[in-house]
Amino acid sequence: MTRSRLRDLGITIGTLPPGPHNAITDVPGVLVGHATIVRDEPTVARTGVTVIAPHGGQSWEDHVFAAAHSFNGFGEMTGLLWLAESGLLSSPVVLTSTLAVGTAYEAMQRYPFEHGFVHATGLPVVGETYDGYLNDLSTPHVTRAHIHQAIAALADGPVPEGNVGGGTGMICHEFKGGIGTSSRLVACENGTTYVVGALVQANYGARADLCVAGVPVGREIGPDQVPQPGPRPLDMGSIVIVVGTDAPLLPLQCRRLAQRATLGLARAGGVGHNRSGDIFLAFATGNHLPVPMDDPYPLHMLPHGQMNPFFGAVAEAVEESIINALTAAETTTGAHGRMAHALPLDTLQTIMRRWTPESPCTPCY
Amino acid sequence: MTRSRLRDLGITIGTLPPGPHNAITDVPGVLVGHATIVRDEPTVARTGVTVIAPHGGQSWEDHVFAAAHSFNGFGEMTGLLWLAESGLLSSPVVLTSTLAVGTAYEAMQRYPFEHGFVHATGLPVVGETYDGYLNDLSTPHVTRAHIHQAIAALADGPVPEGNVGGGTGMICHEFKGGIGTSSRLVACENGTTYVVGALVQANYGARADLCVAGVPVGREIGPDQVPQPGPRPLDMGSIVIVVGTDAPLLPLQCRRLAQRATLGLARAGGVGHNRSGDIFLAFATGNHLPVPMDDPYPLHMLPHGQMNPFFGAVAEAVEESIINALTAAETTTGAHGRMAHALPLDTLQTIMRRWTPESPCTPCY
Amino acid sequence: MTRSRLRDLGITIGTLPPGPHNAITDVPGVLVGHATIVRDEPTVARTGVTVIAPHGGQSWEDHVFAAAHSFNGFGEMTGLLWLAESGLLSSPVVLTSTLAVGTAYEAMQRYPFEHGFVHATGLPVVGETYDGYLNDLSTPHVTRAHIHQAIAALADGPVPEGNVGGGTGMICHEFKGGIGTSSRLVACENGTTYVVGALVQANYGARADLCVAGVPVGREIGPDQVPQPGPRPLDMGSIVIVVGTDAPLLPLQCRRLAQRATLGLARAGGVGHNRSGDIFLAFATGNHLPVPMDDPYPLHMLPHGQMNPFFGAVAEAVEESIINALTAAETTTGAHGRMAHALPLDTLQTIMRRWTPESPCTPCY
Amino acid sequence: MTRSRLRDLGITIGTLPPGPHNAITDVPGVLVGHATIVRDEPTVARTGVTVIAPHGGQSWEDHVFAAAHSFNGFGEMTGLLWLAESGLLSSPVVLTSTLAVGTAYEAMQRYPFEHGFVHATGLPVVGETYDGYLNDLSTPHVTRAHIHQAIAALADGPVPEGNVGGGTGMICHEFKGGIGTSSRLVACENGTTYVVGALVQANYGARADLCVAGVPVGREIGPDQVPQPGPRPLDMGSIVIVVGTDAPLLPLQCRRLAQRATLGLARAGGVGHNRSGDIFLAFATGNHLPVPMDDPYPLHMLPHGQMNPFFGAVAEAVEESIINALTAAETTTGAHGRMAHALPLDTLQTIMRRWTPESPCTPCY
Repeated sequence: MTRSRLRDLGITIGTLPPGPHNAITDVPGVLVGHATIVRDEPTVARTGVTVIAPHGGQSWEDHVFAAAHSFNGFGEMTGLLWLAESGLLSSPVVLTSTLAVGTAYEAMQRYPFEHGFVHATGLPVVGETYDGYLNDLSTPHVTRAHIHQAIAALADGPVPEGNVGGGTGMICHEFKGGIGTSSRLVACENGTTYVVGALVQANYGARADLCVAGVPVGREIGPDQVPQPGPRPLDMGSIVIVVGTDAPLLPLQCRRLAQRATLGLARAGGVGHNRSGDIFLAFATGNHLPVPMDDPYPLHMLPHGQMNPFFGAVAEAVEESIINALTAAETTTGAHGRMAHALPLDTLQTIMRRWTPESPCTPCY
Repeated sequence: MTRSRLRDLGITIGTLPPGPHNAITDVPGVLVGHATIVRDEPTVARTGVTVIAPHGGQSWEDHVFAAAHSFNGFGEMTGLLWLAESGLLSSPVVLTSTLAVGTAYEAMQRYPFEHGFVHATGLPVVGETYDGYLNDLSTPHVTRAHIHQAIAALADGPVPEGNVGGGTGMICHEFKGGIGTSSRLVACENGTTYVVGALVQANYGARADLCVAGVPVGREIGPDQVPQPGPRPLDMGSIVIVVGTDAPLLPLQCRRLAQRATLGLARAGGVGHNRSGDIFLAFATGNHLPVPMDDPYPLHMLPHGQMNPFFGAVAEAVEESIINALTAAETTTGAHGRMAHALPLDTLQTIMRRWTPESPCTPCY
Repeated sequence: MTRSRLRDLGITIGTLPPGPHNAITDVPGVLVGHATIVRDEPTVARTGVTVIAPHGGQSWEDHVFAAAHSFNGFGEMTGLLWLAESGLLSSPVVLTSTLAVGTAYEAMQRYPFEHGFVHATGLPVVGETYDGYLNDLSTPHVTRAHIHQAIAALADGPVPEGNVGGGTGMICHEFKGGIGTSSRLVACENGTTYVVGALVQANYGARADLCVAGVPVGREIGPDQVPQPGPRPLDMGSIVIVVGTDAPLLPLQCRRLAQRATLGLARAGGVGHNRSGDIFLAFATGNHLPVPMDDPYPLHMLPHGQMNPFFGAVAEAVEESIINALTAAETTTGAHGRMAHALPLDTLQTIMRRWTPESPCTPCY
Repeated sequence: MTRSRLRDLGITIGTLPPGPHNAITDVPGVLVGHATIVRDEPTVARTGVTVIAPHGGQSWEDHVFAAAHSFNGFGEMTGLLWLAESGLLSSPVVLTSTLAVGTAYEAMQRYPFEHGFVHATGLPVVGETYDGYLNDLSTPHVTRAHIHQAIAALADGPVPEGNVGGGTGMICHEFKGGIGTSSRLVACENGTTYVVGALVQANYGARADLCVAGVPVGREIGPDQVPQPGPRPLDMGSIVIVVGTDAPLLPLQCRRLAQRATLGLARAGGVGHNRSGDIFLAFATGNHLPVPMDDPYPLHMLPHGQMNPFFGAVAEAVEESIINALTAAETTTGAHGRMAHALPLDTLQTIMRRWTPESPCTPCY
């Protein structure tokens, strides 16, 4: 089955234009790398690691303003105490499987010192979602080597989506989920155009709640059409959302962006279920904070009054990232023969057409 | 022009059943009272006061668990420091005009002591949105007497909506806005049915962003069809959302509900504009905390694992409250001949029909 | 009885040098103004208003980075939602009596628009502590005119302390309390010397808990020596602490300073009693954020690594501000003949000498 | 050199009585276990693991109300997102070395499922401080087996202090630090006596700042008397504080306790240096929250008005815990021949006597 990105199906989210790759890598200097682990022996592995690195991978010593928001905290993202205290993201961000957090944490503590970043803080940022339906968790799969592999794979340009990297074993709205990304261009009143990008590791939600551009797609695709994953707690899932921009935002402006990720999640049908870890992190590369530094840093700050289009851009990019994860992910068979079926693309197109009247209007949002 | 509630137009939000009045007053013991101030002399007044009182108006000495969430903080809600510290709502909640906060605050400090509630804290909860487009703010309109009048009007049962009380002068998605309310019944796994109610003072948003049940209603109604209010900063508006339930929730569970109000706002098209005060407060009447008290309070707490339907209920009730504010509010002429036009109900119905295919599916969400 | 400042008694707090006035006004551009209301007819008034204005009183349109911290939230400080969202203090700070919050709020909403600050936010910052023991609260004393009077009195240089302004009726550690201030000079690694100033409205605490430079002064002064105020709940009191610096700090660095005010309060014997509103606000004038602004603001940010001496400076300046409030305040008779006695200065000196061995060491901290 | 507890030296902190063991284990059901790793080959190890387990080690399925407070966030404590969201501590708490967080995290994820706690959340709470001065971090020392060993060692009764468990390699106020504990009995107005206990992993601070009961002990002990550790950033240290009580407190009441740990730290001379991770966690065992649960939990909540003595108890127990860590810890030689010297007990006694006049008063606080 050939998979696709949402826009290539003729379906558009929102009104703002995407960047050239419609990906978080449209933010200059932001790199993404995956390590995908798929094997059936000795135990079934459907898991992996995704790394997002701002400032061209130099963020261990060229800090980036950032902030996090927890929409529902049934999950882990390490490093948030210092992030909140300092407003600084001082490492790349790692997304992986719940049971790989410890391994990833230790690897990310040691990596910078092994690679000459002597001023690293040793407080890694590792997020996770739970892939224990498709991925056999009885034995660890992710090793330090996979973290290194994902870092080595860091690149700009197009970003592989779906069941890759940390998203390999994920399930979203009871379809096969995983990694998705999108971006928007924001033309600011001051004449500058900035980029807002999002990347999600999408592993949450009930099928009935899935919406695409306001259309209740999930309700239109019954289990007779596309089987659901077997019995698993509907609320056992999570979504980690990373938002980046090249605008010169301060940490608390990043927090405003992080909280706006809720809008995109809400539009796609997320409700922050009780056992869902819906953790959002936003960073802004418009300032550089190299360490060590003696003198006060010279910075810029976008006036708050110009943030409105960024809020809309985050909402659109996050919604589209989630749907991109679904349209890119492929039907996957995992541990114990369990299956997660892909969202059927032709069905999606049919539903979208049926719910959109012939009118000059674009779809909702 | 006869106005209506959304459901009376045949339009449904979500899937959960509403309570008997489809209002926050469906939560037993929750009372609502309005004082509406409309006059043209000596200066134009289009303003008022709305009071929401849990525990039958006894909350000054029969505290209620509660929590607040700020989606965007360009606004005031007093009393939140103690609310956050204690988890207690120890007074009714007042919603009014921005420039009436001081008057309402002082009135609410003195009222309980004048009425025998000797254990009141003196830390009132007063929220506001800005009605300076229709309401002439050059002179104060709201007096202590209006606060008393709204308290005297506290009642259960149906709640007047639209341009009443604190909502009298409000504008929402560039239509006439104001007060709206709705409720949902939540059948819990433990066999108990609880009520979730919402009440909004809606004064935010751009027309193009308005959605109803996933349909982009705002974009379909151009300024040629319904004029927009005159030049005013699109982001100069706010929404205060009050959520109540009779479930036995602890304060941090109320915070979970308060944050879920974001979902309903997002579905209706809110993005938390920079100069919007989007402040949400949730309370739970399932426990009583009378003061003074010597012994530990006996309480109950709903297990977190049973909160999922409450999250959906909040989203639905908030979205419907916002739309109810719009369908109830009447076209209003205010200061300097400025007008805010009502959302045309027949047009709304036509749009909804056009965007909903003949199918057994209910609309989005 | 001649009152004094602590240092004039030969008692020193900490090791850092104070600024020229040992007051928050040592921070360039920071002004303080009091309006003191003392009268016996028609009802007894022992109350007032204190205003702290950074950026020479222009902060309505020349915003200042700031943050607040609540050590115990039984109190009100308005305007904190926008302060937290934006990181901006966009008005002077008003400290007054609990029951004057409403009046002060409305006065501060209208004042800027009446004085040409057309870009003011209308979200005033008003803090309070409770003076109902000495001050008859049955009728309001503070009027809009008093707010204006305190603003008109804004000045740099030495700051009147003790029972003046908002501190007029306050009681601290069961002695007469009120307003106190202090400052410290911080020589930064980068060669620049910055000022850290504090101003407190001190109205909290049990006598037995009072310490001065580590010495248990309160325990040494029994009620036989100095009578305590009559029966009042020991925990019915509060302290508002305002910290200012001219260093170029971002909002979250201000939050770090605000939280460090806890250290000074702890050293003086505060424990954050249940019904104490211990609310701290810190601002940094090292950046100017004029409004409106189209282009990104050029800013500077002190590296976090250079903040340690600021933390110590806040602790010292806050502790000394509290003790200055006590050594400056005069014995006061108020409503119903109630008395609050001043801390006796000679006794204080005797105790300090007795607890300090002849040694080259300075006292604790 | 024989080491001691502070009280055995005749020095008392505060006025409240300690529990029978003057330890966090005085809180019924609270167990503590250490695994201490001291060896010189193949690389020098001075490190370990300490586990604190409420509810008799059953907290994986018998949850405990809890909350955390970050006084300065340069550190890691995992699991805080769910702790904040739910108010529940759903595992024991692990304290260890910074570079052992990953290992401890993974061990604590797997342990409960390997031991029949099928309803565990998989979100461990692991805190850390940095022992890289004495402990050679070039190779990992802590393994999963050490976590298991510390769990196996869980016991009530007296708690080994000083250089044991997670405190093995720690340095505090430039003396040898580590683990310390203390407790206080709180006689509540309602007639019940509750216990408040604290346990610290103390690894922070400059010598000059150390105070004991208000006396500037640190300044009195120069480097000529007791050598300081070699060059290391003065602010490279941290303190993790765990507070427990058997009172029936809700999560936000635990947060109030957690924040009060600041008082004890301030009294001992902590200032929350920039690179110090001063993270506090408080739990209350007065309620049991077993999982799974269908019906609402029956709970009790101590009225806020009775919390004041708890606040004082936390301050005292935390201060004494820190000093106990110092009086118990032994001079240690670690990696590269580096030394951390113990606080000399006779000198401490001499200083305390010299600074305390012959008077019926107890020392400060």
